Amino acid sequence: MTAPVTDALMGLALEMAQAARDIVLAHYANPPAFEDKADMSPVTAADRAVEVRLRQMIADAFPDHGVYGEEMGADRADAEYVWVLDPIDGTKAFISGKPLFGSLIGLLHEGRPALGVVEMAALGETWAGAQGYAATRNGAPVSPRTCPDLARAWLHSTSPQMHTGLDFDRFERLRHACLHTLYGADCYNYAMLAAGRADLVCESSLAPYDYVAPAALVEAAGGRATDWTGRPLSLESDGRVLASGDPAAHEKALDILGA
Amino acid sequence: MTAPVTDALMGLALEMAQAARDIVLAHYANPPAFEDKADMSPVTAADRAVEVRLRQMIADAFPDHGVYGEEMGADRADAEYVWVLDPIDGTKAFISGKPLFGSLIGLLHEGRPALGVVEMAALGETWAGAQGYAATRNGAPVSPRTCPDLARAWLHSTSPQMHTGLDFDRFERLRHACLHTLYGADCYNYAMLAAGRADLVCESSLAPYDYVAPAALVEAAGGRATDWTGRPLSLESDGRVLASGDPAAHEKALDILGA
Repeated sequence: MTAPVTDALMGLALEMAQAARDIVLAHYANPPAFEDKADMSPVTAADRAVEVRLRQMIADAFPDHGVYGEEMGADRADAEYVWVLDPIDGTKAFISGKPLFGSLIGLLHEGRPALGVVEMAALGETWAGAQGYAATRNGAPVSPRTCPDLARAWLHSTSPQMHTGLDFDRFERLRHACLHTLYGADCYNYAMLAAGRADLVCESSLAPYDYVAPAALVEAAGGRATDWTGRPLSLESDGRVLASGDPAAHEKALDILGA
Repeated sequence: MTAPVTDALMGLALEMAQAARDIVLAHYANPPAFEDKADMSPVTAADRAVEVRLRQMIADAFPDHGVYGEEMGADRADAEYVWVLDPIDGTKAFISGKPLFGSLIGLLHEGRPALGVVEMAALGETWAGAQGYAATRNGAPVSPRTCPDLARAWLHSTSPQMHTGLDFDRFERLRHACLHTLYGADCYNYAMLAAGRADLVCESSLAPYDYVAPAALVEAAGGRATDWTGRPLSLESDGRVLASGDPAAHEKALDILGA
């Protein structure tokens, strides 16, 4: 069997990350104009410019690949390879001058997260990982830490308000089982986990472009990323994501989220 | 009347910020060991090393000044000048590898915030302001933006869980009156506000070392920082802080928090 991720694919992903960084930083220094989309999430000219550029790079290199992006929808989403793009994850942070936003470049192979780059433009950090490749931060390998005991675990989630209805109660049960809970880091949550600085990330109301790249990064690092029932993530997932550095903590968290 | 803040005081504050940055960055690259204090907030060797160093610098330069620090308590808190120090605001972020922690160097003159430096070591940003001095980011002046309408306002708060009892309900009312709410930025909330990237910061359960430096920074920029009833901040405040860039928004937020 051929390895699903090749140097050509990883090389393109890293080139896309650099292209995204250049565009994003050009828009970041001054407060960018924004408009609120139908779901009341804001979008800027930078979001759109990044997605246009990344889609062109994919079309030039791999015209038969699928693309699913936050701002411009899906093309060939049933292809063997589908790129899943969030030009700026954390657009609210980007607008606010809060440097924890990132450009997410994910690749599905046969429907499963196979490659992920989390480009933290304002931090100057490129996080990358893939099947058959180590997870790295600016090229240096990273790995999660062990933490089998939830009572010692540090939990991250972008906002309690992302958890709606019964999911909020489930999240609250998990939060009370953990040692500390931090909010507000968007995609950087998964980078901290991949580098052994956090133990759990629990989020919901996510779209595939929010979780495909982070999930591939976490799995390349040796962690786990599933939905709240333990199933692998795919385009068809319900937007509820649990990521962990320790499989024992993952199982305990799944028990709480599924109760 | 002599100006309360002099170049000598501002110069010392900036030297203290550089000293704090050097110590903090030496501890940041690898996950620092921590212990949980009686209030379950973590503390690291870096917190203590920074406070020891800053207290020594104050004692060397101004032995008659008071000092109130997070880790080592108060000396001469009734002095004309009292330095209020948080060696690492956002210790949980610091431990997590999340770069939004900062060293806070505040100075009270006759009980009122007169000078504030917010040293964002991992971001390479020094934010400073004082009575009679512009608010600056790495030396470049910053100022808040106008936003008289809460329905257009971006609100920041480190965590909803900092708001306890009835304060949580008050915060929730304010949150629902605003356009967007972001969590998780600790002291950087006040920097974003000072630079016109956020409109309101609403926090509670704070200690003086959390708010004196940010309040002085915000006021030097031209914004407002008070308690939730509109009173000026001091060592005797109750830990509830509202900061804003627009006085009209401030009054509207006070109305909601006081209802």
